[in-house]
Parts: sequence; structure tokens; C-alpha cells
Amino acid sequence: MADMDCRSKLIATATPLFAEKGFHGVGVREIAAATGVNLSMISYYFGGKEGLYAAVLNEQFETITRVTELKSMDCDAMEKFELYVRATVARYRKNPYLLRFYTSELTNPTPCFETIVKPAIKGVVQILIETFSDGLSHERFREGLNPTDTVLALAGMINFYFLLEPATGELVDHAQERDEELIRHIMDIFAKGILK
Amino acid sequence: MADMDCRSKLIATATPLFAEKGFHGVGVREIAAATGVNLSMISYYFGGKEGLYAAVLNEQFETITRVTELKSMDCDAMEKFELYVRATVARYRKNPYLLRFYTSELTNPTPCFETIVKPAIKGVVQILIETFSDGLSHERFREGLNPTDTVLALAGMINFYFLLEPATGELVDHAQERDEELIRHIMDIFAKGILK
Repeated sequence: MADMDCRSKLIATATPLFAEKGFHGVGVREIAAATGVNLSMISYYFGGKEGLYAAVLNEQFETITRVTELKSMDCDAMEKFELYVRATVARYRKNPYLLRFYTSELTNPTPCFETIVKPAIKGVVQILIETFSDGLSHERFREGLNPTDTVLALAGMINFYFLLEPATGELVDHAQERDEELIRHIMDIFAKGILK
Repeated sequence: MADMDCRSKLIATATPLFAEKGFHGVGVREIAAATGVNLSMISYYFGGKEGLYAAVLNEQFETITRVTELKSMDCDAMEKFELYVRATVARYRKNPYLLRFYTSELTNPTPCFETIVKPAIKGVVQILIETFSDGLSHERFREGLNPTDTVLALAGMINFYFLLEPATGELVDHAQERDEELIRHIMDIFAKGILK
């Protein structure tokens, strides 16, 4: 097995195991056996279970960090907000385990929360706050809105929809085919809620 | 120790243990020892670990189920939505473990998800949908809004604020003293977003 193959395979195998059982619920022997490699490979590539978990989280949160690309984009605040919502939807659709890592790190943090998860989330919220300030300076938004509360409201509208899916699947169609309608609906409420 | 004392103490001790370590991460011996009672008391009162966990979740989600009282209240749709937001804030302030059970059951469900958690969440969302329909029939809301997406957007705005707190505490003041401002802010965006 080539170097990158073995490393990638360990991450790919460990991701669903950590997602389902949590950091403490999975052992290195279990991961090595499920990957079909020798136990020593985990130390060799990651220095141990902590390092492997960090590599898994880095991969999961890398897609969140990519929202920072919005910063340098030449479009107006509402367009950027919509791009953020679209990127969030695409992220959940692409990655079925992200929500588990996201919520478990927020409610039961491991040491990786401070080094990986918190900087990723903070970075996105900061970009959204800057986007809001930019729109405000162009007099697009109503006076008196709190920038952070406003962007957290937007983040909440889209993220919570995915979190609640197991409980609300019988009340609303959560199928991917309806994502475009959902995005337009959220942006419609948000725009009417904050625009002048 | 009187009957109710022992039962209540077991629930009180088990709540933070299950919250921090998850259902599988805690043993009955650990719970009995931490409560200072004989191991057999867990079987006696709850029939085992599953029963004790169900009792913990029932207590946690009882406060959510209380939102159903909104159904019989004589006030208009926007007032009911605000009462829901206020009840949600009060719930998180009163109960530091609710969010952990809530998110872990949604992303890594135990058998209690189907019997306790899902009915509680579905019940609340159904009340909110009925509230929306009531407001719509009184021609208070814009045409074309999807009832479920609209109420999930409101739920997301308030719930996500609490979920993100560990990551955004340096960007926004999450102190209880600011709750009133937060509630008004969310209701302001929501009202402008959906009212005619």
C-alpha cells in the first residue's frame, strides 16, 4: 500500500467510526483492523489516536474553512450571504458525518475543539460579520441590527434545518431536490428581514 | 432514603454523566456509586440502564413538550411565536445539559429517539406550523411562504445561537443579560421577513 493510500484509508475508515462512537468509544486496534493495516501504521502516520482524530476533523472542517474564499469575492453582501447558504447546504449533502462532529465538538469538546473546530467556526462567522458590515456601509440594511446576532440568525436558519431532519422528516420533505426551494425561502425571509 | 428521593437522586446524578459520556460511556455501577446507593436500586426503579436513561430524557424533554400549551392560548400568531422563542431561551438557561442530549440524539440516536425525542420535537414543530396556518388564515403573512420551512427557520435562529456559544463566545456576548435584546432582534427579523 502506498504511503498516501494507507494514510487516506485510515482517515476514511476512522471517520464513520469516530462519528458514531465518539473519540473515546473507538480504539486504535478497531480502526487498524477495519482498515486492514498493522496497528503500528496509526502511530507512524498520526502519532496515535489523537493525531488520527485531528486528521479526521481537519478534513471535515476544511470544507467549512473554504467559506473564507468569500472574503476576496467581488459581489455584494446579499450575494455573499446566499453563497454562504449554498456552500453550507452543499457541505451537508456531500458529507454525512459533518453534523455529528460539529455538534459533538460543540457540546462535548475534545482538545481538537480549540485547535480545529472553534477557529473554523469563528472564521466563518467573522467573514459573515464583515459581509454584514460591508452591506451596512453601502446602506443596504436597516439601522439598528446587531451584526453578530444577524449573521448567527442566518447560520441558524440553514444549519438547523439539517440538524432537525431525523425528527421532522415526516413533516417536511428534506430531499435534496428541494434544496433550491429551501435556499430561496431562507434568503427571502432573511432579505425581507434585514434590507432597508 | 425515601422512595422518591432515591429515584430523583439517581436521575440527578445520571443526567450529567450521560450528557458528558453518552449512553454507552456510562456504567450502572458508576451511577450507583456516584449516587451513593446500592446497584440494585437502578433495576428496582428503572428496570436497568435503558430505563434510567429514558427517565433522564423524559425529564429533559418534558420542558420542550410544554410548548404544546401554546395551542390553547388566546393570542395571535406572532405573539405565540414570540412565546415559543422565550420558552426556548428559558429552557436552555435553566437546563445546561439539554443541548447535549438534543444534539446527540439527533445525530447518534439511541432507541429513546423514536419514543421520547422525536415525538417531543415533532410536537413542537406541529404547534408552530398550526400557529403559522392560523396567522395565514388571518391574512397576516405574505403569500407563498412554506409553513414548515418558515417555522424551522425561526427555530433555527434561536436554537443555533445556543449551540454555537462555545465557538462564538469571543465574537458576541452570550450572557443571559442580553437575552431580551436577542429575542427582540430575532422576532424583528422574523416579523419583517414574513409579515405582509
